[in-house]
Amino acid sequence: MDKTKYILDEKKMPTHWYNVQADLPEPLPPYLHPGTKEPTRLPPPLFCEEINKQEFSKERYIEIPDEVQEVYRVWRPTVLQRAYRLEKFLDTPAKIYYKYEDSSPAGSHKPNTAIAQAYYNKKEGVKRLSTETGAGQWGSSLAFACKLFDLECKVYMVKVSYNQKPYRRIMMETWGAKCVASPSIDTKVGRDLLAKDPNNNGSLGFAISEACEDAFSRDDTKYSLGSVLNHVLMHQTVIGQEAMLQMEMAGHYPDVVIGCVGGGSNFAGLALPFMKDKLTGKKKNTRFIAAEPTSCPSLTKGPYTWDLGDVAGMAPIAKMYTLGHDFMPPPVHAGGLRYHGMAPVISHLAKLGFIEAKAVPQIATFEAGITFARTEGFISAPETNHAIRVTIDEALKCKETGEAKTILFIHSGHGHFDMSAYESYLSGKLVDYDFSDEAMKESLKTLPEIPAQFK
Amino acid sequence: MDKTKYILDEKKMPTHWYNVQADLPEPLPPYLHPGTKEPTRLPPPLFCEEINKQEFSKERYIEIPDEVQEVYRVWRPTVLQRAYRLEKFLDTPAKIYYKYEDSSPAGSHKPNTAIAQAYYNKKEGVKRLSTETGAGQWGSSLAFACKLFDLECKVYMVKVSYNQKPYRRIMMETWGAKCVASPSIDTKVGRDLLAKDPNNNGSLGFAISEACEDAFSRDDTKYSLGSVLNHVLMHQTVIGQEAMLQMEMAGHYPDVVIGCVGGGSNFAGLALPFMKDKLTGKKKNTRFIAAEPTSCPSLTKGPYTWDLGDVAGMAPIAKMYTLGHDFMPPPVHAGGLRYHGMAPVISHLAKLGFIEAKAVPQIATFEAGITFARTEGFISAPETNHAIRVTIDEALKCKETGEAKTILFIHSGHGHFDMSAYESYLSGKLVDYDFSDEAMKESLKTLPEIPAQFK
Repeated sequence: MDKTKYILDEKKMPTHWYNVQADLPEPLPPYLHPGTKEPTRLPPPLFCEEINKQEFSKERYIEIPDEVQEVYRVWRPTVLQRAYRLEKFLDTPAKIYYKYEDSSPAGSHKPNTAIAQAYYNKKEGVKRLSTETGAGQWGSSLAFACKLFDLECKVYMVKVSYNQKPYRRIMMETWGAKCVASPSIDTKVGRDLLAKDPNNNGSLGFAISEACEDAFSRDDTKYSLGSVLNHVLMHQTVIGQEAMLQMEMAGHYPDVVIGCVGGGSNFAGLALPFMKDKLTGKKKNTRFIAAEPTSCPSLTKGPYTWDLGDVAGMAPIAKMYTLGHDFMPPPVHAGGLRYHGMAPVISHLAKLGFIEAKAVPQIATFEAGITFARTEGFISAPETNHAIRVTIDEALKCKETGEAKTILFIHSGHGHFDMSAYESYLSGKLVDYDFSDEAMKESLKTLPEIPAQFK
Repeated sequence: MDKTKYILDEKKMPTHWYNVQADLPEPLPPYLHPGTKEPTRLPPPLFCEEINKQEFSKERYIEIPDEVQEVYRVWRPTVLQRAYRLEKFLDTPAKIYYKYEDSSPAGSHKPNTAIAQAYYNKKEGVKRLSTETGAGQWGSSLAFACKLFDLECKVYMVKVSYNQKPYRRIMMETWGAKCVASPSIDTKVGRDLLAKDPNNNGSLGFAISEACEDAFSRDDTKYSLGSVLNHVLMHQTVIGQEAMLQMEMAGHYPDVVIGCVGGGSNFAGLALPFMKDKLTGKKKNTRFIAAEPTSCPSLTKGPYTWDLGDVAGMAPIAKMYTLGHDFMPPPVHAGGLRYHGMAPVISHLAKLGFIEAKAVPQIATFEAGITFARTEGFISAPETNHAIRVTIDEALKCKETGEAKTILFIHSGHGHFDMSAYESYLSGKLVDYDFSDEAMKESLKTLPEIPAQFK
């Protein structure tokens, strides 16, 4: 009987994160201060020293502290699965593998960085972390991490999700965090917005502003971000490093590496260690595909330009693919993919031609998720269904051409808190959203003015 | 750094189920036909041949078919964890281990038998399985299993849960099963009950009757039960066999083995392979503790006597600890523990003194679950919280006595579909239910009359 599952020995878990900045053919553009427009570090009132150092480091490998490795081992190493049943159902010659990140206590890859961030902040004397969350995957991961390192945690949850997904909020409270709907009355930006528009449903970009203000205004508090930034993506590289060893056990090297992208961190976590082989010329032909929603298509539709990370302009300006920080994505169920921009590292690599992007519509992603559940068993997060959709499409292309390609995708999380989305699909009520070039043009009008030398 | 997690190599997975009937000091009492009151097999219209054979087998080991092993390997072997953080929090010298069964697609140990039952029925030409479910753990597991073996699946879900927990229903539908609220209009017993009492909220014992009628009335359909019966408990012994190898890896043998009991299958799955060592005199001092709710305390309050397995008397009569088949347990969140009886194997071993029982009240179980989530990370099913409660109590006793005992418990499932119960606890709204001896006396009045030779 062939192996279906590749289990790594705990002793072989990575001891270092991989920092792709060491191997980029061109360095990343700097961050710009939202006020002065000068190159800047991450704002020290928001981020502790070690995180700031990691954000700009060029060292290839950064050691994972023992205390972080110890918590990783609550659920890591995660398994690599061969999707035999899916292959058989699709009748494809392709070999499909998936790296399975659902098994963390919070149900996704997110704790890989939450644990590291909580650890460094604790070590530097911080007492409390603030953050934002959309559908709640990130907020619950940070709540879990803060509890383990004995930090207080305050989560600003986008109001539309706060009301629609009470279970993720209760999960955060189970781990002892405080969670409020954003816009909230707990911050000045929140109060100002509510005064103008009491029924405002919030957005991820706005919740970031609230969480930043919270950290700016309290000496005991720093801010924590769950995606986009370099250090976050780097913390996720434990995924890809494990997967490389497991693919070796399986005796295959991936021809195609696939992940869904919102801010970009789960895709980066799987892809970057393999990307090293491409950047260094060892494996020139590996394809990397980022799967995004057609309704929030920063990589496939947005320009590569300078934009704010949040609505109120408290976070630095970054060069990235963006739909404009005022772009309001439609209410797709994949809440984690509803971000206007894209990680600078992913954007940079896409611009340089190392990453392809595919946009997929919502209904087709759930169709893929149902196929996956009915063959492989696992019920996937709506975000993950984007990666599954693109994987199935690639496997079906192999069926046409007869090529027995090896496809590896990241199964970033489970859908246990998203069953109402599945019901919506199964009852035929799920909709696709058109993307409006006009709306994007409108939101791109508020891009920040940038000094000429950075253009 | 000490190991926190014991990962078994796929190659070391058990190839046989362990059948405790081979090692019992006295044989199990027979089943009696609910009509004739004569010793009987399982009704062949309900159960296929191989299942019937396994139910009464005295062979010590029964081979797990390759096809079943192959599906087990979607999520098995499961990990054994050392609960260092919980130990530290409790400041106990006890060593706490847990066998973690949350990682199956359905989120609990239940698929271990669902897969086997679906396989044997498929092999014998059955096209469709019917079953009942309370909170939905079992129904979703059988839905998953049926989809993988291409069987239709019909689930009768206790109406109060059907209405309160729509997400478990959607999970079943995601795997292609049909799920209706019980009492339903799809069976005669259901229609009769609804005619008398249109607002009846259903019970597990009644849903069993509906599922049995469904199978009795259709040639293409057999019935499937998720706990209580011998073959079900036996299929769960993969858990304990894996755990024995993993405890060996850890270098400890458990002094105490703990699990929650409703029908008894998850506890049996972990306990029986260790029980073999006790029954055969190899390890005489191991304690086995079954944790049950104070509100449905069959082992601690019920008599050991002959009773029906279901309300309508379609299933055989078994000798077991029971509160009476008409006993209506209060609506505790641990829906899987709301069964009037107890597995004959567990009952028999408890009667013979090999198993102790502890009843724990609902609020105390959630307090334990919160402690577990805030130390070990994982959010547990309300059922599992009963095992955690008893584990913590035993560990605290060790703190008093200074004994460094080794405690092993089974973490039977996650609480992702039970967050409203956690909210209820966190907001101080959760209640405990008194157990009424009077109510039990009342329900014991309808115990079946049994011929003298079986008394």
